[in-house]
Amino acid sequence: MTQKIQLLGISNAIVDILAHVDDAFLQSIGAPRGSMTLIDEPKAHEIYGRMGPATEMSGGSVANTVAGFANLGGAASYIGKVRNDQLGAIFQHDMRSLGVDVRLEPARGGAPTARSHVLISSDGQRTMQTYLGACTELAVGDINPRTVGTPEVILLEGYVWDIPEGPALAAEAIRIARQVSARVALSLSDSFCVERHRDAFVAAVRDGVDIVFADEDEVMALVGVDSFEQVLPSIEDFDNLFVMTRSAQGSVVVNGDETVVQKSIAVDELIDTTGAGDAYTAGFLYGWAHNESLAECARLGTWCATRVIQQVGARLERGVLDGYRRGDA
Amino acid sequence: MTQKIQLLGISNAIVDILAHVDDAFLQSIGAPRGSMTLIDEPKAHEIYGRMGPATEMSGGSVANTVAGFANLGGAASYIGKVRNDQLGAIFQHDMRSLGVDVRLEPARGGAPTARSHVLISSDGQRTMQTYLGACTELAVGDINPRTVGTPEVILLEGYVWDIPEGPALAAEAIRIARQVSARVALSLSDSFCVERHRDAFVAAVRDGVDIVFADEDEVMALVGVDSFEQVLPSIEDFDNLFVMTRSAQGSVVVNGDETVVQKSIAVDELIDTTGAGDAYTAGFLYGWAHNESLAECARLGTWCATRVIQQVGARLERGVLDGYRRGDA
Repeated sequence: MTQKIQLLGISNAIVDILAHVDDAFLQSIGAPRGSMTLIDEPKAHEIYGRMGPATEMSGGSVANTVAGFANLGGAASYIGKVRNDQLGAIFQHDMRSLGVDVRLEPARGGAPTARSHVLISSDGQRTMQTYLGACTELAVGDINPRTVGTPEVILLEGYVWDIPEGPALAAEAIRIARQVSARVALSLSDSFCVERHRDAFVAAVRDGVDIVFADEDEVMALVGVDSFEQVLPSIEDFDNLFVMTRSAQGSVVVNGDETVVQKSIAVDELIDTTGAGDAYTAGFLYGWAHNESLAECARLGTWCATRVIQQVGARLERGVLDGYRRGDA
Repeated sequence: MTQKIQLLGISNAIVDILAHVDDAFLQSIGAPRGSMTLIDEPKAHEIYGRMGPATEMSGGSVANTVAGFANLGGAASYIGKVRNDQLGAIFQHDMRSLGVDVRLEPARGGAPTARSHVLISSDGQRTMQTYLGACTELAVGDINPRTVGTPEVILLEGYVWDIPEGPALAAEAIRIARQVSARVALSLSDSFCVERHRDAFVAAVRDGVDIVFADEDEVMALVGVDSFEQVLPSIEDFDNLFVMTRSAQGSVVVNGDETVVQKSIAVDELIDTTGAGDAYTAGFLYGWAHNESLAECARLGTWCATRVIQQVGARLERGVLDGYRRGDA
């Protein structure tokens, strides 16, 4: 008997290529510091050819969350498109080695597996130049009752709306979710992504999406306000569970009349903030899938985020729950 | 006018696949802790399929040294064989991005680019399972006056003797070195490698090799003694410069009647010992190429080794000489 899947992630399957850069390099490629820019294949070759020695590791926002959820011990599945090349093999290996049920086989043709050039400044800030490659070929047909199965939660990321069939396949995922009584969660990806697809995101959040994961910039962009203080009244007329992270200011969870405010945990040494939000989402959903209270979900998310910023790389390492006790976080 | 090359490395071009493992995993694949084992492609697939999420980065012992030497500001070139696949592109990119003159284009057919599964135990010890792939196709014909050029030093690694044409291509490299008045250095790789090729190494060290880089286990295996104390009298009848590293006990450099003993530098936190020897060799050769005294070369080597064990990964990061002052080390 197979394990009941708790979380299905549907997202862009990306291998990160990480390297240190200085500000002059960012200027020379026209990349605003801290931005995520979509680039085409020639630009990807140009940037890679000019950037320094790198390290490669599997990435992608919701893919990181799925990996983290599996690492915590949760039962997860994943839908994302890679090509049958070496980077695709790396991506699928890293998922499967955590026990994630990878639902799609690599494509035998088409664009190569996606890669994101993650350019790390001396202060740890990251600028991403992402070539979506095979991700752009994820299609509505890849989302069907057989690939989706019967998860408890389906997690989509905003970046899915950047690919040609993204809006349609997200709609199909929501449709199937209703049939199998799965909840739908949406991680808003980044504030520029929200700007690109704001109307579509608002429509999805109003009809189909149950849980919204966002940092404060993203939720501000979604509801169109300039400060986080304005967010809370703005989301009152939404019927969703909002899970909002605020870096060092902790996180705020709003579910109708219930509001949970969770402090961040002070860390001795911040190594790398990448993946903090993805890890938070993994921890929160792990608690949620185990029927914990929202306060406990927020504590667990915070714990995971705190762990991931004290390591290099965006994916939680093993033993992430070591030391976690109720009330410590 | 092109820059005069100071160091040419000839070695196995390998991409490392790094993952954390427990002792049970090592036992299950029959890998002695801390060993380096050569494996075939089916075994490589088996191990990769069973190991956890990984990080990929360019590796290879002498390749690490060449990259470190270039990172220090030295002029370096490199001969090693990769295939025209994504891992091969990663390897060549990482070299070229440091300014290394990569002499061979990727092979258009044959075995895939080599990879070493680097299995990291909880105490930081590394066990390597290496599939040589395209490396095994490095041939005598790849070593010729055009590819070798006129470097000041040619650095070979013991692992080259593990590939079919390795002994012959090493002999050819030594022959060309004599013609262009280059010195020949040999890094002994590991003590098991020395056991495999001891007679060939002794013959090469007696005739052709000028400088021997070894850790204490390797030099003990080379001269066939059981303790480091027995090494010094044993190497008296060799005519070579011996550069011997001893981990926390520092290093010993012997050149005929001259002996330099260099202490190690205490570190607050040892992150990852991989590449300590390769980095030492890079620093030592950088000093040597700049006509520094043997004592200064040893200090510089020690500095580089100290830096690399305080970071993750075997290759020196940028700015390695920041903070280095004569006499500090």
